[in-house]
Amino acid sequence: MPPTDRIRDHAGQGAATTVAAHRTRRRLRADQARQLADLLRHQILTGRFTDGTLPHETTLGTDYGASRNTVRQALDLLRAEGLVDRLPGVGTIVAARKYPHGLDRLMGLAETLHEHGRVTNEVRTLGPAPAPAPVAERLHVQPGADVLYIERLRRLNGLPLSLDLTYIPLDIGTALLDADLENTDVFRLLEAITGQRLGHAEITLEAVNADAHSSAVLQAPRGAAVLMLERLTHLADGRPVDLEFIRFRGDRITMSGLLHRSL
Amino acid sequence: MPPTDRIRDHAGQGAATTVAAHRTRRRLRADQARQLADLLRHQILTGRFTDGTLPHETTLGTDYGASRNTVRQALDLLRAEGLVDRLPGVGTIVAARKYPHGLDRLMGLAETLHEHGRVTNEVRTLGPAPAPAPVAERLHVQPGADVLYIERLRRLNGLPLSLDLTYIPLDIGTALLDADLENTDVFRLLEAITGQRLGHAEITLEAVNADAHSSAVLQAPRGAAVLMLERLTHLADGRPVDLEFIRFRGDRITMSGLLHRSL
Repeated sequence: MPPTDRIRDHAGQGAATTVAAHRTRRRLRADQARQLADLLRHQILTGRFTDGTLPHETTLGTDYGASRNTVRQALDLLRAEGLVDRLPGVGTIVAARKYPHGLDRLMGLAETLHEHGRVTNEVRTLGPAPAPAPVAERLHVQPGADVLYIERLRRLNGLPLSLDLTYIPLDIGTALLDADLENTDVFRLLEAITGQRLGHAEITLEAVNADAHSSAVLQAPRGAAVLMLERLTHLADGRPVDLEFIRFRGDRITMSGLLHRSL
Repeated sequence: MPPTDRIRDHAGQGAATTVAAHRTRRRLRADQARQLADLLRHQILTGRFTDGTLPHETTLGTDYGASRNTVRQALDLLRAEGLVDRLPGVGTIVAARKYPHGLDRLMGLAETLHEHGRVTNEVRTLGPAPAPAPVAERLHVQPGADVLYIERLRRLNGLPLSLDLTYIPLDIGTALLDADLENTDVFRLLEAITGQRLGHAEITLEAVNADAHSSAVLQAPRGAAVLMLERLTHLADGRPVDLEFIRFRGDRITMSGLLHRSL
């Protein structure tokens, strides 16, 4: 069976009845729009539309072998994500910028985004609090012993990027009470306080819908997709010193890295 | 200034007026609920509630030093995420399972989840299609040359996990037309076809809200948070062979890995 027949088989375009064929066409339009949207998303995120304007719909249709309706639907998907906007008389423009956070190296936010602007931190809560059992266990302190708890809203050039909840053992954390948390990554402060480099971190990433309060704090729509990062960071000598729960606005951050087949 | 005074400063509990104090308390309840929800989420994801039931609200309140209302609000947050459910007469149960996808090593889905069950793939589209410029560029083929396009809905034990859009150069891809794509990772097939191991992959992760059609295909609520993975995989000799756009259901997948401070 030649490849083209296979496509028909799988897509069901060979179906006998008109109704089935029509259903298939509709399903395929949405699928094609998603496919095109994913390709355009990559171009947007990597800054390929240098003047901030996407090509005309007709050009996109020709370039990507897509119908006018598919192109429109793809642009609708990207508009719903907040990535593009339509300006009357101008066309489709890139509306949002996503910033790349590295997955290859353990870095603080200001460190990783320094070329994109200035990171500032609004400290919402700061002070010692008794460590619940799961925090105590991971930070290797006695359950109920005080740890430093910090809650920060982090901004890049004034725009909310993430809401960070941080737990630090108090023997190290106390020195943070007098530090410039508004303008400095906790990572840098931990290295300054301990005189040690950080070593490694165990991370877990999830996509979650923001609850009402978190989205209000992040100034994002309710239910907005959030990239949730849980990170337990250790000093170079292996001691766990920093447990964090970070909600990144999904429309402002991407995480990039390199994976290898063999370890 | 002793640490406790600092907390008051930042939380605003030292505010003179009743209204301001009340506002602050309300804000803090939501913040405390989020904080507790994050700790419970970790316990749920790591399977700490071995019988699938969370402790009673009163016990949680004692264990985490939280008020009854804060505990309830935290459980509401986790219920909204679909992680727990409340059963009358039973209490709060773990309702969903999230499966860990490794960020440390380049692996196919069936490979990485083999201990959790069987991965099956519904092939929605399969066949050659002209490569748009951005695909051609990344796969090092001529623009407009045919590449193999595959669209798969991937399930673990029958539950939809991800929707994968895949592009493969046709000289390698043709052999996939006769392969058992329903039951085999493309990664394994690529290694079998080329007689080479895969080498590395560049990945980008984002959190996005699923559009109506994608959520329907994934059987997730409209707007559900999706972990979006873009991955360009290379053979051991460096040749790019597999460009993928993967939408993971946010409520079913976590990505875990290890980061190091020094490269």
